[in-house]
Amino acid sequence: MDLKSKIRVIEDFPHEGISFKDITTLMQDGVAFKEAIKQMAEPFYGQQVDVVVGPEARGFLIGTPLAYELTSGFVPVRKSGKLPYEVVEANYELEYGNDTLQIHKDAIKPGDKVIVADDLLATGGTVKSTVDLVKELGGEVIGVTFLIELTYLNGRDKLKGYDIKSLITY
Amino acid sequence: MDLKSKIRVIEDFPHEGISFKDITTLMQDGVAFKEAIKQMAEPFYGQQVDVVVGPEARGFLIGTPLAYELTSGFVPVRKSGKLPYEVVEANYELEYGNDTLQIHKDAIKPGDKVIVADDLLATGGTVKSTVDLVKELGGEVIGVTFLIELTYLNGRDKLKGYDIKSLITY
Repeated sequence: MDLKSKIRVIEDFPHEGISFKDITTLMQDGVAFKEAIKQMAEPFYGQQVDVVVGPEARGFLIGTPLAYELTSGFVPVRKSGKLPYEVVEANYELEYGNDTLQIHKDAIKPGDKVIVADDLLATGGTVKSTVDLVKELGGEVIGVTFLIELTYLNGRDKLKGYDIKSLITY
Repeated sequence: MDLKSKIRVIEDFPHEGISFKDITTLMQDGVAFKEAIKQMAEPFYGQQVDVVVGPEARGFLIGTPLAYELTSGFVPVRKSGKLPYEVVEANYELEYGNDTLQIHKDAIKPGDKVIVADDLLATGGTVKSTVDLVKELGGEVIGVTFLIELTYLNGRDKLKGYDIKSLITY
């Protein structure tokens, strides 16, 4: 199945000059969505995966079915103030200003094997913070996986030393 | 498995007097998470389910693996300004003020069989708006399903005429 043809490209969203990759058209097709998640899960079959970690909100869309397919737990990384229990946090830079991501401090046990999942690798800021939070809790990141990678933004440069996979590239 | 024992109850979050039901402790346990989603899917096995619709952000955590299990599509309902394509929207009241939810106008085709899924049924405002958006696009809501229901808040009163299910009740 040509999964890339299921992505809708929307020009100038959220602002001029951005060519936005809309994954909702893939997700609303049950067969295409299942195929995409299965392909993302495949490299990890037979490996110990304790939890999949995904940043809000689109990381939830990819990370939870991936965790489900692998019978792993899922751990959300959220913006400040959303998680109800004790957290550790990381700051990351945005185009204008910066933002904070948090993870529950008991969400990962030292030595847990962790996959970090998100919908899209762009400049890599969000996912780098997510990886850092996993490491701070003692988790071992065995893979970082994306539905889409914008290769021309070189997000991989922020994730050196990790096993990075992506299904659809631009 | 006693799924209710996997929920962490946090008092006075997000503000005093609220007894918050934290689903992250269930979700980080891969076996419990899988069991919960399977139990939510079970009533719909053998039925036509075109899409599962879930409101951001915690509705994504439940709705996407449920869609995956049923080989259905998943359609996100989001806060204003997050969806990149043309939308229809619904306003709903919050404790203080109100908020807007949006859905892509081509996300559901007239006659599509739809399950609406969320983590928690409280007063029912968010899910009622979600159901209304599905109906506005011509979808047929064949079920509304929650991981948790706070029965003492009578959210079901806002959803009369729908087949409502919940796995864990307080």
